[in-house]
Amino acid sequence: MLDLNKDNITQVVLERFANTPDPRLKEIMSSLIQHLHGFARDVKLTEQEWAQAIDFLTRVGHITDDKRQEFILLSDTLGLSMLTVAINNDKPEGCTESTVFGPFYVSNAPEYALGDDVANGANGTPCFVKGSVKGLDGEPVAGASIEVWQSDDDGSYDVQKPHLDSMQGRGVLHTDSEGNYYFRSIVAVPYPIPDDGPVGQMLNLTNNHPWRPAHLHFMIKADGYETLVTHVFRRDSRYLDSDVVFGVRKSLVVDWVEQADGTYLLEYDFVLNPSNS
Amino acid sequence: MLDLNKDNITQVVLERFANTPDPRLKEIMSSLIQHLHGFARDVKLTEQEWAQAIDFLTRVGHITDDKRQEFILLSDTLGLSMLTVAINNDKPEGCTESTVFGPFYVSNAPEYALGDDVANGANGTPCFVKGSVKGLDGEPVAGASIEVWQSDDDGSYDVQKPHLDSMQGRGVLHTDSEGNYYFRSIVAVPYPIPDDGPVGQMLNLTNNHPWRPAHLHFMIKADGYETLVTHVFRRDSRYLDSDVVFGVRKSLVVDWVEQADGTYLLEYDFVLNPSNS
Repeated sequence: MLDLNKDNITQVVLERFANTPDPRLKEIMSSLIQHLHGFARDVKLTEQEWAQAIDFLTRVGHITDDKRQEFILLSDTLGLSMLTVAINNDKPEGCTESTVFGPFYVSNAPEYALGDDVANGANGTPCFVKGSVKGLDGEPVAGASIEVWQSDDDGSYDVQKPHLDSMQGRGVLHTDSEGNYYFRSIVAVPYPIPDDGPVGQMLNLTNNHPWRPAHLHFMIKADGYETLVTHVFRRDSRYLDSDVVFGVRKSLVVDWVEQADGTYLLEYDFVLNPSNS
Repeated sequence: MLDLNKDNITQVVLERFANTPDPRLKEIMSSLIQHLHGFARDVKLTEQEWAQAIDFLTRVGHITDDKRQEFILLSDTLGLSMLTVAINNDKPEGCTESTVFGPFYVSNAPEYALGDDVANGANGTPCFVKGSVKGLDGEPVAGASIEVWQSDDDGSYDVQKPHLDSMQGRGVLHTDSEGNYYFRSIVAVPYPIPDDGPVGQMLNLTNNHPWRPAHLHFMIKADGYETLVTHVFRRDSRYLDSDVVFGVRKSLVVDWVEQADGTYLLEYDFVLNPSNS
């Protein structure tokens, strides 16, 4: 018969999960149990704190629905999302770096032709976006799928505006035969992540603001290359040094250049990593 | 400007939370971030696995309501609940040991007089329960509040039976002037924790059964003593060596003795730890 106490319980739990048939799941559960127990032991978690953690997670679960993903926000604000991205996208020198996916992507964004306006009615200062998609050896990537998404001048994504009847500020385009792309949109601005839920409460209690620096999301897919999920940030944006989701990488920060007519121009060339390289 | 990568991100996240005003929250967040990042690093968590974890936690959140607490089940089945209990209830030799609270406690259980039947209609073999409540020095504790709760012959607690219009198998009694208690109830049987949700899926994928050995829950409160939350287990029960929530301690396992008339007798004496000892 088992006799559980604070000294033997971790070993007993590990043994109980040691019969997990899938070796990868076994590895994950084993590390998870050790770190979870290590955390409770290190801080001598009290029963009241444990109950507060249960309540916090319950509220994170209950505010999450098909439009709002508070668990992703939690992962983002604890740096876990960016760490996972960084671990899995350690690309050769010269490739465009990845950053966090974020909670505002939605599938089935509308297709646009090169030159179209993906803002589709979203408010903001007009911005022309252009550049190229190449492979690591410099070869142009024709027909690459470029999916973009961004917030409007208020800092809101379309999915945060339930009254909209069409998608705004997001779309899918394809590079031309020389691997070039270009489209019209609006200038990105800083915005706060949704902070009226438990994650916002955590940020508040830890003296953290909820803001992200201005950025435009890109997901680029092409046969023979690793999919690239990244942002392009504005160099003159606030919060570049304190992005609440830890997504900023120097190589992704560029000038968005104001033109004589008050519109903006953003140029960015992407370099994809060939698959299995 | 920050330039985040897999090598510096943990330090950057820790610095961001270093301004947390409450020192205890700061300590907890710091350890949590280090262990969370340590886990992702140790297993080289993939982006797909991260997404599966987000989906798992979302389902845990969505199945949780005021009758079912899947986050507590998750904590229980990973041994975190019992570890927290063990860390916080390291009592002097001679005191009754604590074990997990479990998810089936409800407040406002009915008051009973000594000798009453707390089963209140729950099915099962009758069992008479009796014993004493004493302090560590052997002094009887008169008027101690004894709250008990248990499942019925089907292994279900009353809260799992939504059609019931009164509480069954739970109640509050008080020790007499000599610190003795006695009441009627039914014999406890092993039961599975609710396993039709994500935690059940985790148990299944890790080759773990969902069963708990037969037990009767006790929560004992008295002025001048630490509150005791514990179980008394049946020595002849299955699953004593594999309790799915890791709650078994040898000192809590006793004989439930069958009597000549087919009913049972359970005797157990509790020893409370004086407060601030």
